[in-house]
Amino acid sequence: MARGWFLRRRPAGVPEASDFELRDLPQTPLAAEMVRVRNRWLSVDPYVRGRMNDTSRGPNPEMDGPAVGIVIESMAPKLPVGALVRHRLGWRDEAVGAAATFEPLSDLGLPEILFLGPLGSSGMTGYFGLLEVAKIKAGDRLFVSSAAGAVGSVVVQVARDRGAHVIASAGGAEKCRFLKEIGADVVIDRLAPGSMTDKLREAAPEGIDAFFDNVGGDHLEAAINAARLNARFALCGMIARYNDEAPLLLSDPMRIISARIRIQGFAVGDFAGRKAEFETDMAAMLKRGAVVAKDTLFEGLEAMPEAFIGLFTGHNAGKAIVQV
Amino acid sequence: MARGWFLRRRPAGVPEASDFELRDLPQTPLAAEMVRVRNRWLSVDPYVRGRMNDTSRGPNPEMDGPAVGIVIESMAPKLPVGALVRHRLGWRDEAVGAAATFEPLSDLGLPEILFLGPLGSSGMTGYFGLLEVAKIKAGDRLFVSSAAGAVGSVVVQVARDRGAHVIASAGGAEKCRFLKEIGADVVIDRLAPGSMTDKLREAAPEGIDAFFDNVGGDHLEAAINAARLNARFALCGMIARYNDEAPLLLSDPMRIISARIRIQGFAVGDFAGRKAEFETDMAAMLKRGAVVAKDTLFEGLEAMPEAFIGLFTGHNAGKAIVQV
Repeated sequence: MARGWFLRRRPAGVPEASDFELRDLPQTPLAAEMVRVRNRWLSVDPYVRGRMNDTSRGPNPEMDGPAVGIVIESMAPKLPVGALVRHRLGWRDEAVGAAATFEPLSDLGLPEILFLGPLGSSGMTGYFGLLEVAKIKAGDRLFVSSAAGAVGSVVVQVARDRGAHVIASAGGAEKCRFLKEIGADVVIDRLAPGSMTDKLREAAPEGIDAFFDNVGGDHLEAAINAARLNARFALCGMIARYNDEAPLLLSDPMRIISARIRIQGFAVGDFAGRKAEFETDMAAMLKRGAVVAKDTLFEGLEAMPEAFIGLFTGHNAGKAIVQV
Repeated sequence: MARGWFLRRRPAGVPEASDFELRDLPQTPLAAEMVRVRNRWLSVDPYVRGRMNDTSRGPNPEMDGPAVGIVIESMAPKLPVGALVRHRLGWRDEAVGAAATFEPLSDLGLPEILFLGPLGSSGMTGYFGLLEVAKIKAGDRLFVSSAAGAVGSVVVQVARDRGAHVIASAGGAEKCRFLKEIGADVVIDRLAPGSMTDKLREAAPEGIDAFFDNVGGDHLEAAINAARLNARFALCGMIARYNDEAPLLLSDPMRIISARIRIQGFAVGDFAGRKAEFETDMAAMLKRGAVVAKDTLFEGLEAMPEAFIGLFTGHNAGKAIVQV
């Protein structure tokens, strides 16, 4: 029998395992144009935390998120049994829905798990945020926050491939070693003593030309304080905010004007029309080893809440993926 | 004998009249390529407050700022006696210097005082900030802070001329009447009770597409809270900061990402190469009455500190200018 995760109660702050409940799913027969998919890989994403605050779907909504699976039953001629697909009905072992909501994987000659990582939305987020929002170019000094995460680890590698000098932050010695492995030039441990402003000043004494931000809070403030003339900031996420409602404090906001900083919020959906271009370029970088997928793998559907909570407690490096 | 203003002591917070001292200036003979200019109009600008904190010019520097005057003695063939010029040696009645530091006024068939207002740096700041940074277009909902000031009053009028819907803030009933006179659609009195976020929400229930900011602080926070998708913010000044070092607080910084806000600091110098284009367009708007210069005029060099302090105590509407 198929099973899926539901929200048992709405968490305040960092979620706990007991906030989730694994339930049996009713067996849904297929109507015309529907397919049944056996999920193989489930993506573990911080954006889901925001959705958990959304009360419009009742008190105990079914959890969901990106997943890759294989069609095991089909009433849709365009999506036959055996097709590999990516979709949004993760957090469960079997997905049933209209064929149009399942996206066949492009034939790039690369393993299917990459379609949840560098070839998935975290890769596409990092790629377009870096190239189109932060407008990185060779010689730029780039600061990447939460750089050991799914998006950040792609940003570090693509930036290095484009010839940028990369200053990367993460929490703890293990993740900092990981950042060196994937090519960061200078590493900042956010858990080390001292303010982020002081630590960034030491790591980038000449300042920064670009900032790819997954954190907000003290990282954003430090980047403003370190910005060189015409610096470009791509704001992608604010991990510091997901579980904390304290206001953002900027000690020297006039620097936005004096350094002519451009701060731009974005999301991967802004570039939805450019998937083919992205996949071609990213597949090439993967094949020549310029980008290497770095995953924290979990085993079995039961591990989903643990993998998710690890996003906020700093236990995952790279992209977190559950193998069903 | 020529006279000029000096800084007597470095102010903390809002300057006072006793921070300034009027002194006789030594009679400087002209060397080759130098001119002597009788100042007619002195510009009164908030940016000078920032320069007063600069300790690199000693404890009692000579004050300066934009001015318009007429050449009364010349050792430079290119700048004969009688030429009208704009320059940076204001806060005094007579300016002496190399001819190259004086800029002849363009022949636009408009009164010379306009070259310190709509045709001067405050006009050029508003013009390029609005059109090139905030990228205003017909139908946009624009919020302008400190809209009764020299820059703001130009922004309101140019935005209306371009077909935007203008929400404008200023302090006090008199300035709010002034904003209505120059064409603002909706006016916010920043001194009225309630938070700026609440007042802006009421003034712009559908949100804003663009923000031209002279204030920072609670105005910037309110604009972030009211921003529609892809809103563009042009940060020009932070009056709230010039005399106050409290950090900027943003209660909901995630909106920068969710609303895809683009926040861009700029200064008029970024557009220095585009003066001719600006003057042509602004002169046309002045001639057809789309932009009307609104000045607070002061009489005599002695009035300079009073006029300057009025920038921070909210006593001036439009551009403050001293007639020598």
